[in-house]
Amino acid sequence: MNKNRLEAFSDGVFAIIITIMVLEIKIPHGETFAALTPLLPVFLSYILSFIYVGIYWNNHHHLLQSSKNVSGNILWANLHLLFWLSLLPFATGWTGENHFAPATMALYGFILMMAGLAWWILQNKLIATNGKDSVLAKAVGGHRLKEIISPIGYAIGIACSFWHTWISGCLYIFVATVWLVPDRRIEKTINNP
Amino acid sequence: MNKNRLEAFSDGVFAIIITIMVLEIKIPHGETFAALTPLLPVFLSYILSFIYVGIYWNNHHHLLQSSKNVSGNILWANLHLLFWLSLLPFATGWTGENHFAPATMALYGFILMMAGLAWWILQNKLIATNGKDSVLAKAVGGHRLKEIISPIGYAIGIACSFWHTWISGCLYIFVATVWLVPDRRIEKTINNP
Amino acid sequence: MNKNRLEAFSDGVFAIIITIMVLEIKIPHGETFAALTPLLPVFLSYILSFIYVGIYWNNHHHLLQSSKNVSGNILWANLHLLFWLSLLPFATGWTGENHFAPATMALYGFILMMAGLAWWILQNKLIATNGKDSVLAKAVGGHRLKEIISPIGYAIGIACSFWHTWISGCLYIFVATVWLVPDRRIEKTINNP
Amino acid sequence: MNKNRLEAFSDGVFAIIITIMVLEIKIPHGETFAALTPLLPVFLSYILSFIYVGIYWNNHHHLLQSSKNVSGNILWANLHLLFWLSLLPFATGWTGENHFAPATMALYGFILMMAGLAWWILQNKLIATNGKDSVLAKAVGGHRLKEIISPIGYAIGIACSFWHTWISGCLYIFVATVWLVPDRRIEKTINNP
Repeated sequence: MNKNRLEAFSDGVFAIIITIMVLEIKIPHGETFAALTPLLPVFLSYILSFIYVGIYWNNHHHLLQSSKNVSGNILWANLHLLFWLSLLPFATGWTGENHFAPATMALYGFILMMAGLAWWILQNKLIATNGKDSVLAKAVGGHRLKEIISPIGYAIGIACSFWHTWISGCLYIFVATVWLVPDRRIEKTINNP
Repeated sequence: MNKNRLEAFSDGVFAIIITIMVLEIKIPHGETFAALTPLLPVFLSYILSFIYVGIYWNNHHHLLQSSKNVSGNILWANLHLLFWLSLLPFATGWTGENHFAPATMALYGFILMMAGLAWWILQNKLIATNGKDSVLAKAVGGHRLKEIISPIGYAIGIACSFWHTWISGCLYIFVATVWLVPDRRIEKTINNP
Repeated sequence: MNKNRLEAFSDGVFAIIITIMVLEIKIPHGETFAALTPLLPVFLSYILSFIYVGIYWNNHHHLLQSSKNVSGNILWANLHLLFWLSLLPFATGWTGENHFAPATMALYGFILMMAGLAWWILQNKLIATNGKDSVLAKAVGGHRLKEIISPIGYAIGIACSFWHTWISGCLYIFVATVWLVPDRRIEKTINNP
Repeated sequence: MNKNRLEAFSDGVFAIIITIMVLEIKIPHGETFAALTPLLPVFLSYILSFIYVGIYWNNHHHLLQSSKNVSGNILWANLHLLFWLSLLPFATGWTGENHFAPATMALYGFILMMAGLAWWILQNKLIATNGKDSVLAKAVGGHRLKEIISPIGYAIGIACSFWHTWISGCLYIFVATVWLVPDRRIEKTINNP
């Protein structure tokens, strides 16, 4: 019951974040296809951010599904995650409008990194609440390769943004690809506990 | 349970898409009815897009109601559909503000086509997950006239947009009319399996 | 089940309509209280529209609570209602920014009238689906004073807007006051069937 | 059932309020970190407002969880709360863009105060509906220190805003800190009735 409302509120915020990003793709004044070309960088950054929010929603879905208890501090850990994700539309628009300029790519990576950190905190708090023998703990407790790759990818991405921004872009895309597969570990453990 | 949250998130995105489109109808500076006339094309495109999103929401509702199981790749097929629908407010505003100029009508049709393709993928994945003998499969498995008419309508619409844009407009309205009737096939099969 | 998702989607649209109206109250450039005075008409129209959307949400809540069955054409009657309500933020902003100019007050009343008509259609379709002996039919079937007062109030309001706009304003406020009381008829009949 | 829809609608409004505030952080034209510095005040006010909306959502969650019955006037008491919270994005943007100027800080405090008053009314109406012996009444009926501190904090904050705005800021942050802890009283009483 408790959990349901946390999910409903998070779903609302996820849905709004993913949709207001599209408002950054401002309608051009021209009426030809040529008028669309300046929008290409904004559109590309929109696609990547859409995928990231989709990944977070997907994994959030799996994470909470395998949780039984939700306490007060988990509500705040969840809000902390939503706070960083709520800044993603800003970073997306800024980097898109400035054709992936160094500072904008660094900020984009920084927000991804903070969202990743907030996710990690939320996951740990959920494991602590549900116990080390819970379905959740077992599922997450396997190999944590993805959890290690992500911050490294973001960190190198932020560092490289002042050198070659395309490396940063590739790294952010790479981390998204790694996460695209929903947490099969959890799904498996639920089905075969 | 799984399914409920997919529905809740999709409902949120549908609700936001349908509502932010109205933000493209910018408040005019004049205070007379004459000040409203330049808004007429935007308003007309808003009505059509509102109906299209309504059709998708309606059919999405029927589709998921007859589905029992939702797997990880269905979450992504669903996000793929929402991605193309999230671009509809942009296409709606662009074509409305440019009085249905050729390129804008072609883009509008292209986004409708891609949303239709995403819908078709989602439907097939749901059938694959629920099995060929499921309520869903039987319901959808009847005549697929609508599924054939839509892409043809969009394709001719896109092609005609550079010749006579009003043909494109009529075709997009025609396809919407075909779909306006909710999928009675599914409704029937649920009630009389 | 069917009904739940209709409610969830409508709640989403109601929530967004009520919230995006506040975006019409544009942040002023000045930093003194004097900078807020030009916003007063927009703020007043915001309050009235907020109350109207609140009334619709409240009554929508009561109407669907006493309904058992939801058919395909009810989904569309509901979307029709949401369509007119989605235009309320536009009418609210237009009339507020133009200090309740005649044409803007007429449009505001027209949209209220169309929303009222859409409500009346939705209510009738729900009664037709649930049967004349249903809780809903009995509840609504009492005195229909409010249903008669509203369109008359709107109609006179629209007509008077070109004569004395303050009469229109008073009428729109009056109709809202009449509706402010949630449909006690329905509530009573549910508790004492 | 009644209650569920009240929660769903409120969740939607909370989610939208918390997310549209981020739209006030306008994307700067420059592409360097220096272009972000003028946004710092807006960002700081965003953080505080995000926390306030989070507090209200959290406590709303706890308040309704321990309520059994929801009557018609509670729907309006709830809408009244959402009304004042819906003005928070405006106040947040105004104070942020004007670097916490006196009038803007006073308005910010005034809206917090009115939201607090609306909360107090909602809580009292829920207690009246659920009875003085309900879980809710017992939980809230303990020490009401927080309820006394908040209005005093806001009032002094408003008064000080014309003298030293930083005192107002500190007071608003202080009140938020007091409330950050979710209402453990309620949580305790539910678990050990």
